[in-house]
Amino acid sequence: MSTSSNNQHDVEDHHLSSSRGRNAVNYLPDYLTDARSVTKFHPSTAPDGALQLSVAENQMLEDLLIPALTHFSSSGTETESISSAADGLFRADQIYYQSTHGRSGLRNAMSSYIQRLCKIPSSMSLDNEKLVLGAGCNAVLENLCFCLAEPGDGVLLPTPYYAAFEFDLVARAGLKIIPVNSMNFHDEFGESTSPIQSSVYYPNRKSLDAAYQISKDSGAEPKILLLSHPNNPLGICYPPDVVKECIDWARDRKVHLISDEIYAGSVYKNTKLDGKDTFQSALTLAADYQPSSTGLGKGLNLGPYIHFVYSLSKDFALSGLRVGAAYSENEAIQIPMQKLNDLCQISSQTQLTVERMLLSPPNDNLESTNMLWTDFFMPQNQNRIRLRCERLQNCLDDSGISYLESDSGLFVWMDMRTFLPPREKESEIETQNSMDKRERQLYLELLHQYGLLFTPGRSMRNELPGFFRCVFTAASDVEFDLALKRIKAFVTDKTNT
Amino acid sequence: MSTSSNNQHDVEDHHLSSSRGRNAVNYLPDYLTDARSVTKFHPSTAPDGALQLSVAENQMLEDLLIPALTHFSSSGTETESISSAADGLFRADQIYYQSTHGRSGLRNAMSSYIQRLCKIPSSMSLDNEKLVLGAGCNAVLENLCFCLAEPGDGVLLPTPYYAAFEFDLVARAGLKIIPVNSMNFHDEFGESTSPIQSSVYYPNRKSLDAAYQISKDSGAEPKILLLSHPNNPLGICYPPDVVKECIDWARDRKVHLISDEIYAGSVYKNTKLDGKDTFQSALTLAADYQPSSTGLGKGLNLGPYIHFVYSLSKDFALSGLRVGAAYSENEAIQIPMQKLNDLCQISSQTQLTVERMLLSPPNDNLESTNMLWTDFFMPQNQNRIRLRCERLQNCLDDSGISYLESDSGLFVWMDMRTFLPPREKESEIETQNSMDKRERQLYLELLHQYGLLFTPGRSMRNELPGFFRCVFTAASDVEFDLALKRIKAFVTDKTNT
Repeated sequence: MSTSSNNQHDVEDHHLSSSRGRNAVNYLPDYLTDARSVTKFHPSTAPDGALQLSVAENQMLEDLLIPALTHFSSSGTETESISSAADGLFRADQIYYQSTHGRSGLRNAMSSYIQRLCKIPSSMSLDNEKLVLGAGCNAVLENLCFCLAEPGDGVLLPTPYYAAFEFDLVARAGLKIIPVNSMNFHDEFGESTSPIQSSVYYPNRKSLDAAYQISKDSGAEPKILLLSHPNNPLGICYPPDVVKECIDWARDRKVHLISDEIYAGSVYKNTKLDGKDTFQSALTLAADYQPSSTGLGKGLNLGPYIHFVYSLSKDFALSGLRVGAAYSENEAIQIPMQKLNDLCQISSQTQLTVERMLLSPPNDNLESTNMLWTDFFMPQNQNRIRLRCERLQNCLDDSGISYLESDSGLFVWMDMRTFLPPREKESEIETQNSMDKRERQLYLELLHQYGLLFTPGRSMRNELPGFFRCVFTAASDVEFDLALKRIKAFVTDKTNT
Repeated sequence: MSTSSNNQHDVEDHHLSSSRGRNAVNYLPDYLTDARSVTKFHPSTAPDGALQLSVAENQMLEDLLIPALTHFSSSGTETESISSAADGLFRADQIYYQSTHGRSGLRNAMSSYIQRLCKIPSSMSLDNEKLVLGAGCNAVLENLCFCLAEPGDGVLLPTPYYAAFEFDLVARAGLKIIPVNSMNFHDEFGESTSPIQSSVYYPNRKSLDAAYQISKDSGAEPKILLLSHPNNPLGICYPPDVVKECIDWARDRKVHLISDEIYAGSVYKNTKLDGKDTFQSALTLAADYQPSSTGLGKGLNLGPYIHFVYSLSKDFALSGLRVGAAYSENEAIQIPMQKLNDLCQISSQTQLTVERMLLSPPNDNLESTNMLWTDFFMPQNQNRIRLRCERLQNCLDDSGISYLESDSGLFVWMDMRTFLPPREKESEIETQNSMDKRERQLYLELLHQYGLLFTPGRSMRNELPGFFRCVFTAASDVEFDLALKRIKAFVTDKTNT
């Protein structure tokens, strides 16, 4: 195309749509483009089709969720805050405009739930006015970041990271993502280390300082540090001292730390060898217990720099309901966040259903036990995740594939570097381009030759090529069995050639 | 405060929150601030309290809506597209991620509904892939504008206009609102005209050209013309030739016309004296019926410059459910809008409930009549609105208050200029400031002395002071009776002094 017709095209584009709209699409992960053209597995019509082991959904819970949600959608409970719901599932007060940051009933229920989830001492409690409920974790996270940072400001993100953060934070909020690469800031790690250890991925003051400086040098004011904890894609909880180091660093630097704890209820190895909880929320690690003579006020004394996001999409497998929550005690953003949330509110109907879900006993006959349905559901879910995970890890052990010893989330981080095609020039330092190319070759081989669709690590900005995330909860039993067979077949073929 | 402490404050603000977050709040209408401190009416505890005649809600439909929505929320219908819902209200496919622009079932149902609502000939049909369903009209409107215009671009808005457009379009999308003042572009209108005629508010080529030039001169590229049709706050449908003139102008100028038809189902005087429909949608006026030898394709041949938004918040009084729809045949924004809508999706539960609402017969025994529940509901709603409106207009007639003869919406536009306090200097041209001040005095008098909370016209950027919007559907019968009495008392007092 000639320059003049290019210009013509640009002029026409300029009229028809905005550049920011067109660009937004570019922030979406592109590795799935290859997968779209591939036939998907179907037990009868496409038994050789590709298995979806890439989308982080938990599809093992329908037997628990569907009867329960049918119940919560259609009848009230006797709990005080929703007693008026007992006589019908659709109520007059659901019809009209709601508080833009969520119905007070659901904010109360969600606060109590987060309190238990994050094991916040009963002497403290979340301040419900500082909780914002919106249409998904992405929606409230975008809102939070919009209120904390200007367009062009930097968000520090430890690598590898959930690829969709790029869309959520850049497309509309206009932030600049600054990867925090921690590998080179851990003395014990060399590129050839195997099996790989979680600790090489832990952010620390050195790696955060380096990213901070990179952000500054690129002209982006570093404003936010976003932690995924438990971590997606690594499938691990950061140890408390790592989170605490990040909190202290953020406060020192006047950088906002957002702890995305969307997998907090999917921790399936709950205690470490030392008997301590595997998962400790940034909320408990950042809280400051300061009883005053006038008694303890509401809130956790987090100060203005610590923020928390959560949703029901992972731990309750309810991504379709779009229920996200952001919690911040930063007074300066409270009203802006509440008001901006008007643009991503949750349906009142779903707010009431979820309120019932979070407050109800396991069934109507057990009200006296003081147990909640969530207390019944969560351990069962965690147990199912653990069993699947163990089967995957046994298969990887048998096959000689290294992986990160995981404790949370719906995935295992696999080190498949040994199966990468060789570098073109072994002697030189490898370029980003060469790393992408080699990993993509392995990704396509796994997809096309073995029907295994994993998330390639480079799409999650992993430093080194050859790592893949395997989601083990989105497959049916039949699909999962087949996935294990195919992984073994892949390794067998590779070992024999 | 000294300059240095101001600076100190700014530096601290800069760390704690973003200026765009803090500024967002400034785009909210501020007249309600005065109202918040006033005691609200309560039949027993505050019989002298202020009556809310300002928020555009329809609270006269609970007897129709609650049983129907309870039914639609809890049981399926036998229609083909949702047949699998018959066995339970919560389904496995609701749990997981949905199409970001809405479930195909609801998009089909909404398309059919819009087709009937807008009286689109059956030879044409909306293209469901070009319909985007999001969490409210504000959410999809923001998304649409984001995809059409760059930050700082101009949106032309005929005055007076729905005040919340400023928040929806400026706070995050960063557009600049350019008022289209049409009064001076109608030869027949002088400031003293009374009773006031709808026609003085109609945008036309002259007023649009003038606003276009003002936008250009201010450095804002004029990109969008946003029509509210039926119009809020005027309570009228624009005549077809006015809408057509806007469509032609927009296409000529390569400006995007968005027709916000959120009140399209609340037209309560359905035919004009000439027998033609009062309301004609921009969709039908912009559609181009071009049968080809290969048969008619999907869509209305709107071209890239005509767009439509709608929601269930007004015509179905379901603002709490947050169900908005945007329709555009502009290919350049289709994928960006679908993807960005990920940040404001509707709960799958509510999508299914609304799908049932739009597809179901009036009750389970009448399936053979081919009539839908919406066909039963809408005329009843329109009838109730009309009866209330007539009572208000009779009261205004009796009191000698001029108003715009309305045919749609939930409000009447009242001309109360005669009750404004006098100008300080009659001989000079009045300043904006003086107009604001005089109207505010009357607004506060109505609120404090008579317990009447109307929306002041200047908050809706009306050119002249002294106009008020009275919402007549948000009050209970008791409250409405009392409002009429108070209006009469106000006029009596004014006439006697």
